[in-house]
Amino acid sequence: MGTTQLETVPEPKYWHLKTVLSEALDQDFAVGEVLPNERELAARFGVARATLRQALEQLELEGRLQRRRGVGTTVAPPRLGVAVGSAQHCWPGESGDDWTPVDATEAVPPAAALGLLGTAADQLVHTVRRTRVTQGQPVAAELLYVPAASVPGLSAIDAPAGPARARAVLRELQRLVLEGQDRSVELGSARADDAKELDRLPGAPVLLVTTRYFTAAGTAAVSVATYRADTCRLTFADTGDVEITHDARAAS
Amino acid sequence: MGTTQLETVPEPKYWHLKTVLSEALDQDFAVGEVLPNERELAARFGVARATLRQALEQLELEGRLQRRRGVGTTVAPPRLGVAVGSAQHCWPGESGDDWTPVDATEAVPPAAALGLLGTAADQLVHTVRRTRVTQGQPVAAELLYVPAASVPGLSAIDAPAGPARARAVLRELQRLVLEGQDRSVELGSARADDAKELDRLPGAPVLLVTTRYFTAAGTAAVSVATYRADTCRLTFADTGDVEITHDARAAS
Repeated sequence: MGTTQLETVPEPKYWHLKTVLSEALDQDFAVGEVLPNERELAARFGVARATLRQALEQLELEGRLQRRRGVGTTVAPPRLGVAVGSAQHCWPGESGDDWTPVDATEAVPPAAALGLLGTAADQLVHTVRRTRVTQGQPVAAELLYVPAASVPGLSAIDAPAGPARARAVLRELQRLVLEGQDRSVELGSARADDAKELDRLPGAPVLLVTTRYFTAAGTAAVSVATYRADTCRLTFADTGDVEITHDARAAS
Repeated sequence: MGTTQLETVPEPKYWHLKTVLSEALDQDFAVGEVLPNERELAARFGVARATLRQALEQLELEGRLQRRRGVGTTVAPPRLGVAVGSAQHCWPGESGDDWTPVDATEAVPPAAALGLLGTAADQLVHTVRRTRVTQGQPVAAELLYVPAASVPGLSAIDAPAGPARARAVLRELQRLVLEGQDRSVELGSARADDAKELDRLPGAPVLLVTTRYFTAAGTAAVSVATYRADTCRLTFADTGDVEITHDARAAS
């Protein structure tokens, strides 16, 4: 990673610097290795600190670098592929689901979930918090909103709180016949509570996965899952068995 | 949007400010309206410019604000739902696909696509550039990598360049029997060429959707699509018809 002359390049300096740094990461650094500090790096590449910082931010967005408090900037391992499509073609909590129920409360859902659930703006719904750990790393935190109408058999006194309550809500939900689900993915920023569970700072970029589960009667539950954008690559498997997918296409 | 006292709040100032600003956007501003400048906003809320800027960055990540050169900071419309799952359960360019072929060249694919294609590191592959416009807005730019082995009938002299060449590559690809596809979504930063097509600055946060199309012989093509993260919410439809999905589940 020698001194590089950037003065003669027509594209934005930080952009070219990003490319140069990216190559240096491939060649001269190991995963987990701590980068020299900003002053040293800026001097080495002959750029202003602001330019360096822009390039580092780009590399962080692309998942090449991680910045952690008390550690500094390190070379990130490749992103983890985390299955979103396949394992969840069933109710939350059914077998094959690698989420851990943490707690359940009753709360008014945020506006986005409210719109999908169609419940009244002041109506409390069961709110199950779950976390997902993949290869020993916390990758996602979820809030699952379940209106009381979806779980009529749920008793208020049986398992009133904690993981047992969360499991009770999921168990009741699984009594319904799941007719389908749809899902969206968008960029967001981590809320303080999710950030803590995900070992990130509040406001860190995250991927928000919103899933709507529906029965013949309408939307039975809505999940809003917050995935770490720095370490995760969300994977969507092929839709089931290939022949059956083709048949479905031909029939529709 | 009156003066708000933030001094007594225990959470990070910019975080609370973000919440206050978000409510102000709902109540006092219309979509497309230009916000007062940073100095004025900082004075109004009694915070430092740096704090204000952090809060504005959060709101931009969440898709609430847009910053555009020469315009300033405006209130963003709700994100566009852009279907990723359903329309693409067929070869790129088949009917129902709303991408526009722009050009086709031969190039060595980037490392990520190379790994999925399994071609040699110095092998040129057909590289089709396409763009996607939804409701009049450019939402995505795509590079589709097609090894020569996937399109053996393609003639070098027929339609040597431009959109006609791109269509010729797609047409040849569609002769193969598509056995399946898989897909991943991750956070990235816009490359300069994509940024230009998407009317963004280089380095803007984007959602990278990588799709692998495979036949019985292996991977036939790899698409890397860059979606605007500020204006797009990627939607994944339920897997085909509901009954058929259930049958597929029961059978597997």
